[in-house]
Amino acid sequence: MAAGRARSVLLTGSNRGIGLELVRQLLGVPTPPTCIFATCRDPDGPRAKGLRDLASRHPNLVLVKLDVADPSAVTAAVKVVERKLNGLGLNLLINNAGIYTPTASLDTVGAEDMLRIYQTNTVGPMLMSQAFLPLLKKAAQESTEKGLSCSKAAIINISSVLGSITKTPETFFKPVISYRCSKAALNMLTKCQSLTYRDAGILCVALHPGWVKTDMGSQEADLPVDTSVQGLLSVLPTLSEKHCGALLNWEGKAIPW
Amino acid sequence: MAAGRARSVLLTGSNRGIGLELVRQLLGVPTPPTCIFATCRDPDGPRAKGLRDLASRHPNLVLVKLDVADPSAVTAAVKVVERKLNGLGLNLLINNAGIYTPTASLDTVGAEDMLRIYQTNTVGPMLMSQAFLPLLKKAAQESTEKGLSCSKAAIINISSVLGSITKTPETFFKPVISYRCSKAALNMLTKCQSLTYRDAGILCVALHPGWVKTDMGSQEADLPVDTSVQGLLSVLPTLSEKHCGALLNWEGKAIPW
Repeated sequence: MAAGRARSVLLTGSNRGIGLELVRQLLGVPTPPTCIFATCRDPDGPRAKGLRDLASRHPNLVLVKLDVADPSAVTAAVKVVERKLNGLGLNLLINNAGIYTPTASLDTVGAEDMLRIYQTNTVGPMLMSQAFLPLLKKAAQESTEKGLSCSKAAIINISSVLGSITKTPETFFKPVISYRCSKAALNMLTKCQSLTYRDAGILCVALHPGWVKTDMGSQEADLPVDTSVQGLLSVLPTLSEKHCGALLNWEGKAIPW
Repeated sequence: MAAGRARSVLLTGSNRGIGLELVRQLLGVPTPPTCIFATCRDPDGPRAKGLRDLASRHPNLVLVKLDVADPSAVTAAVKVVERKLNGLGLNLLINNAGIYTPTASLDTVGAEDMLRIYQTNTVGPMLMSQAFLPLLKKAAQESTEKGLSCSKAAIINISSVLGSITKTPETFFKPVISYRCSKAALNMLTKCQSLTYRDAGILCVALHPGWVKTDMGSQEADLPVDTSVQGLLSVLPTLSEKHCGALLNWEGKAIPW
């Protein structure tokens, strides 16, 4: 059920917030994935304690050091995952790692901030998908399922309603310019990935987790993290060809561009 | 008529293609702007000969050296323009400078290319608009016109239908991933600018010039550059509040996000 019964899942930015809760809930389903690769920038550091605690109790959880903004780190992570998968493919890549500058209005945002946020939030998911493409293709080829699904082979980009240009007038109480621009670009990337990778049997979808009470979302946010993640994990198994390249929220509702 | 009778216009990337033709046609209207600032990276170099030829015949054309991706160059350009305007505001900023990598499919595009294109196509217009904001505000305050218009104060971002996520399935014969992502982000930026700058009397609109026969568009393109620019210059004077933050093509038709 959860993650559409993907056998193997890789999740970036998994040491806190939505990422950590995704790992926790994926581990807790009746039939969890055989292998969950949870990446973060510093799995040995103080901010990954929750993740290490989970790993100590769950042998199917593998921690991988990775900064998605660093192309050589991405390449190194593929090698680790490939070895662990031992000839099998990767079913589900969840590009969850993201950063933002809460104060970035047009009055204050600078070039450096724009580039830094873009590098992690947009270029990161592009590099990850390129690098893990052979393993995703392998998973699609191994599968006997017809059509596209998260249990076969999929790229899920965690995006945001703040990347919706249409919705900007109603969400602009948070200007967060650098974040918005990076997520609009990520939505475009998702569409391009869906058109490029569909023939290889890989489903590509962008998901908005809601405005979630996390370090990033702050405590003003309206959604507890476990509710958001329950929603996301209920949406995954419902995804198919018809969602190719779409942006959906944690309840599976389409968000306009 | 052309440029909605803006008294002063600044145009980036003006040494060739659509930029150069915009300068040429702006100079040729019955009542041309009092001051046209045409910027490019190397106004003294071999690729700006056409622009220099025009400047030698038109004293209202001022060439300004500027790389929009370089924050300090942007600041320096403001000083040059401010001095020349001699206490008056700037009516119209046209962010036209843009670059692209024609071969950037998901198979080939890299982090460096993504960041380089974003820096010029998205961060550039952001920096330009921030830096010229005081001069644009001054123009808006000087004006006795009601509402928003290009003759009062406006930022026009030259975007592209290739930045439309909705239109991607029909335009994907040119993947140009780095360009598409930068233009989707530029469309988001335009929307944010329109919401932020409206109260200061500044109109912000994104325009798609069509697929134009230029160095960038190549000779396969379907639109001669003079036709595209005639279109763009006919659209400018029609723009008002109701176009705030929209993406329109060279014929004034709205393009969905």
